[in-house]
Amino acid sequence: MNFRILKKAKRGYGRLGVIETDHGVIHTPSFVPVGTQATVKGLTVDQLRSLGTESVLCNTYHLYLRPGDKTVKKMGGLHKFMNWDRPIWTDSGGFQAFSLGAAIEHGVGKIASIFPGRNQKDVGEKERVIKDGLTRITEDGVEFRSHLDGSKHLFTPEKSMEIQENLGADIIFAFDECTSPLHDYQYTKKSMERTHRWAKRSLVAHKQKEKKQSLFGIVQGGAYKDLREISAQFIGSLSFPGFGIGGSLGKSKKDMYKVLEWTMPHLPEDKPRHLLGIGSPEDIYECVKRGVDTFDCVLPTRLGRNGNALLSGENLNIKSGRYLKDKKPIDKKCKCYTCQNHTRAYVSHLFRANEMLGPILTTIHNLFFMEELMKGIRKSI
Amino acid sequence: MNFRILKKAKRGYGRLGVIETDHGVIHTPSFVPVGTQATVKGLTVDQLRSLGTESVLCNTYHLYLRPGDKTVKKMGGLHKFMNWDRPIWTDSGGFQAFSLGAAIEHGVGKIASIFPGRNQKDVGEKERVIKDGLTRITEDGVEFRSHLDGSKHLFTPEKSMEIQENLGADIIFAFDECTSPLHDYQYTKKSMERTHRWAKRSLVAHKQKEKKQSLFGIVQGGAYKDLREISAQFIGSLSFPGFGIGGSLGKSKKDMYKVLEWTMPHLPEDKPRHLLGIGSPEDIYECVKRGVDTFDCVLPTRLGRNGNALLSGENLNIKSGRYLKDKKPIDKKCKCYTCQNHTRAYVSHLFRANEMLGPILTTIHNLFFMEELMKGIRKSI
Repeated sequence: MNFRILKKAKRGYGRLGVIETDHGVIHTPSFVPVGTQATVKGLTVDQLRSLGTESVLCNTYHLYLRPGDKTVKKMGGLHKFMNWDRPIWTDSGGFQAFSLGAAIEHGVGKIASIFPGRNQKDVGEKERVIKDGLTRITEDGVEFRSHLDGSKHLFTPEKSMEIQENLGADIIFAFDECTSPLHDYQYTKKSMERTHRWAKRSLVAHKQKEKKQSLFGIVQGGAYKDLREISAQFIGSLSFPGFGIGGSLGKSKKDMYKVLEWTMPHLPEDKPRHLLGIGSPEDIYECVKRGVDTFDCVLPTRLGRNGNALLSGENLNIKSGRYLKDKKPIDKKCKCYTCQNHTRAYVSHLFRANEMLGPILTTIHNLFFMEELMKGIRKSI
Repeated sequence: MNFRILKKAKRGYGRLGVIETDHGVIHTPSFVPVGTQATVKGLTVDQLRSLGTESVLCNTYHLYLRPGDKTVKKMGGLHKFMNWDRPIWTDSGGFQAFSLGAAIEHGVGKIASIFPGRNQKDVGEKERVIKDGLTRITEDGVEFRSHLDGSKHLFTPEKSMEIQENLGADIIFAFDECTSPLHDYQYTKKSMERTHRWAKRSLVAHKQKEKKQSLFGIVQGGAYKDLREISAQFIGSLSFPGFGIGGSLGKSKKDMYKVLEWTMPHLPEDKPRHLLGIGSPEDIYECVKRGVDTFDCVLPTRLGRNGNALLSGENLNIKSGRYLKDKKPIDKKCKCYTCQNHTRAYVSHLFRANEMLGPILTTIHNLFFMEELMKGIRKSI
């Protein structure tokens, strides 16, 4: 992988750049759609390519459980498996291992399930045990239960590297613990320090193996200024070719912007920065200004499947009865396949009739919207 | 609409032809995919076009209930509504009015619900009442309940024509009563005679209105030789530009072939013949030999959504664990998008992971398979 900065914004810290991988380039700032299970839900790879999508991010946790990273490797790696010849990212698997593993035990949402003091007890520095001891975080790694069948698994930095190498994405991430906004300073600090040790272990495990993949380190430290600074300095000093910013970004958009302002100055300027799991249009504007190069998020695809079409102003809930006789496209100015071919009335009908084509058409619109948004941002730099 | 026979098979009664409509041609023998709710499930119209699909059949009953034929008319008719610029067929709505309306009352499958003597009582010649009197067939038409909300509706020949005119398909069907293999001779005869009266009423209602649509008459008569002959002679003598063969085709494939052999000699040779609801590959071969020009059936799309891929030999259940590491495409010789781009392993994974793309890819394969099948049949004539 190679990263070149083509231009810097006159105001703020935005950069125009290009990430070059063996599978093609990513023009930054870029939004990366999520293809959790080796598919961006509902779209063929041809449709995805025609939207201008340059890369996708798949989830290590899901693919490890199903169909299994070894199966994907046997099939020639993720690119061949899903027949996507452009760049692929995989995350570290940490976030889902903590959250989905815990969620299934407790039947609760993913963040609620890792509240400190609620569903877990904190056993000194060495161990975080989530209720009933079914999900355990130790110095070694995280022991969790599959959300599919309850079977027990262990992710360590070494295991995460092995899985991600089997999957064969172009850009992979170091194994980290993702803390929530409800973790206190003490826990966030301990967790961050462990993540730092895991980052070094990830690097060591990675260096011994696949050279074609680029391993990004992940900055943690929650919404605490000194921790973010320490983490950015530490992770930034390691030999990663790029960085992810992970974990809690606070409780508000303002908190998130602050976290970025604390973090960015301590990361090497010439390496790309990926903001994990963030992707609402307004967030992207603000985060690019603060120096973020790439984003991944399920938001545009998930909103699309649920009938929420992205617009420059307020989103449009296409399922609403008010659109049943509306001859306009979702967005008059939009050049996407959906808006060029179909009315709101038709898409609304599809959703109300539980037809697959409704989610498909709205996903197409939303991902195209994101591509256009990023094009506009790149132009403005 | 215009129908030209280009060539007749040397053996049997197969014909090579072309149906010309205002929205383009249908090369016959042709298989017509079903797009019940103004969408062939899971496919964009572009995908459908790229498969070579020349026409689709939508269901009058479903579109009448949702979004409503008047809404479709307001949106410019079905072609504009679903943005399909090639020919469209609509059925008469009768079959679903009887079967779905009855099924919801009784919570049973559609054929079982109209067994004579089980869920209904037969009140002389004038009325067939399905259990509890919620679905009533009278000389006037059929009173039924919506499977969506239980609301009461009445379909008559005149109403069916009005709805189909609002929908605006190129080829529409006369209102008929579809009998089941379990109806006895007496009931089938009475029903057929009523369908004949409805056919004339359909013609009268249609003639007064939209001229651009071609109204096909429907032959009934169950699996009874004399009734099929009478019905074919009667319906064939009316001024329909084409014909559907509907109702019970007996209890076996042999029965079905016999029904066609009784029917065909009595239909005008120069007009197209559509076999309603039939579409397994082996049936199509045999029915073309007996003079059928067009077919519609949900089978290829429904099988596809359920993970059954059509092959020349036995179908392939792609969900089976045995394909999880199979690098071959569904069919090595197939030139469809799915087989050209994806392995069995990937499609199998998609189904097991409940990903929409699984049904989409298998539907694409199955519809392409049907197109190739029909091409082969046309070539062989």
